[in-house]
Amino acid sequence: MIQWSRFRTSDGRLGFGVIVDERIVECDGDFYTGPRPTAVSFALDEVTLLSPCTPSKIVALWNNFHALAAKLAKPVPRHPLFLIKPGSSVAGPGEAITRPAGYGGKIAFEGELGIVIGKPCKDVAESEAADYILGYTCVNDVTARDLQTKDGQWSRAKGFDTFCPVGPLVTDEIDPWKGVAVGVRVNNDVRQDGNTRDFIFALDVVIRHIAQAMTLFPGDLIATGTPSGVSPIVAGDVVEVSVAGVGVLRNLVADE
Amino acid sequence: MIQWSRFRTSDGRLGFGVIVDERIVECDGDFYTGPRPTAVSFALDEVTLLSPCTPSKIVALWNNFHALAAKLAKPVPRHPLFLIKPGSSVAGPGEAITRPAGYGGKIAFEGELGIVIGKPCKDVAESEAADYILGYTCVNDVTARDLQTKDGQWSRAKGFDTFCPVGPLVTDEIDPWKGVAVGVRVNNDVRQDGNTRDFIFALDVVIRHIAQAMTLFPGDLIATGTPSGVSPIVAGDVVEVSVAGVGVLRNLVADE
Repeated sequence: MIQWSRFRTSDGRLGFGVIVDERIVECDGDFYTGPRPTAVSFALDEVTLLSPCTPSKIVALWNNFHALAAKLAKPVPRHPLFLIKPGSSVAGPGEAITRPAGYGGKIAFEGELGIVIGKPCKDVAESEAADYILGYTCVNDVTARDLQTKDGQWSRAKGFDTFCPVGPLVTDEIDPWKGVAVGVRVNNDVRQDGNTRDFIFALDVVIRHIAQAMTLFPGDLIATGTPSGVSPIVAGDVVEVSVAGVGVLRNLVADE
Repeated sequence: MIQWSRFRTSDGRLGFGVIVDERIVECDGDFYTGPRPTAVSFALDEVTLLSPCTPSKIVALWNNFHALAAKLAKPVPRHPLFLIKPGSSVAGPGEAITRPAGYGGKIAFEGELGIVIGKPCKDVAESEAADYILGYTCVNDVTARDLQTKDGQWSRAKGFDTFCPVGPLVTDEIDPWKGVAVGVRVNNDVRQDGNTRDFIFALDVVIRHIAQAMTLFPGDLIATGTPSGVSPIVAGDVVEVSVAGVGVLRNLVADE
């Protein structure tokens, strides 16, 4: 049972560490294969938390909640459906979600549970899929709604810089198979209030399906789909994605 | 005027270098900011050429040739259309394009000119876009055709491991604005025979449009769209993508 994050110190140095008793204990070595705690630690409010991973790709599921599929009158898919968000779209906790230059349309939040992959993963059985999970985090799959239909492919609508806030930490202390609450508040109003019990595809099925297509690397992120309740956000809004047992990912929306 | 590639020596060491008089002169330093030639060189047939870049993302255009849009009766788009192929889909010259496990449908080649980005690129003017190009290469945007329609989003159909052969080298010795031949042969039969003169969007427009959405990093790859003539390939086929002035990217198709 462990919690990890990446951080920047007040003098601009980057580090990573494990969170123990509200302090972050800096580690050296490789984050995925052998982090070694050092004697250095910081209070959480002494450092700026960064996205806890720097994914080479984000695999984002869509149509993975029964209630949302029913609401949108979409058929339940026969296998997990996904698209790729680029690593360049990642934002850290507290970082602004920035409206793209030249885009005046709607921007929507989509609160999701994120899976952080811990080791290279290709062609794995469902029974082994959980072994490749380092832990879980919160993800906001921000979307330029007007471009989704217009472009046809969603890579641009979901791929803008800052359109994938991730954090504030990664933990292995939750069990999404047993049901974990996933929610979003905007300016403190509840907008999404889902639970992983409503997943169309369990996470072992999801990982097997994705890893049948492509190699997942340590730090790669799977955004597991959003429950119902997505709606637009505008400059000045504070969006909070929460996953029970993980924490709250808070980001301000800003104009260009 | 220069040609670069990455390679693996016969004893398994990885390196990169510049190609001079049919030999590859190994470099050290950073490939993008300051490669320094060493005294070591190899004949091209002494080493295995690898994909000349290891992109963090591949931005793949679709519907960027007038003749193909006309043939498919697709309207000419008002701006470049693209999707993301993950870096994990890259294959080197000579590497097999492998049929995904459990997929029995059609696989198609799509020969394309590739742009390799040389420095971080975001929000650039069209007049400056060419400054961010390191050089050009050949790309095969391999596609599991049956999944493209079925999934809706094309990330899986175009994102399988080995579905993005790249190479054999990067060169700045061609000028796609003036017209460069882009073709494909399968088992020595000509299947595609296009020219960048038929692009719907010139490359400065393409780069400005993509970099308005997302930061491009050194080594990122833009696949600039395929001309008409795409067709299925099967195990045993030899697919050769050629870009005039770059060379020939040759890959065998293999069953799982």
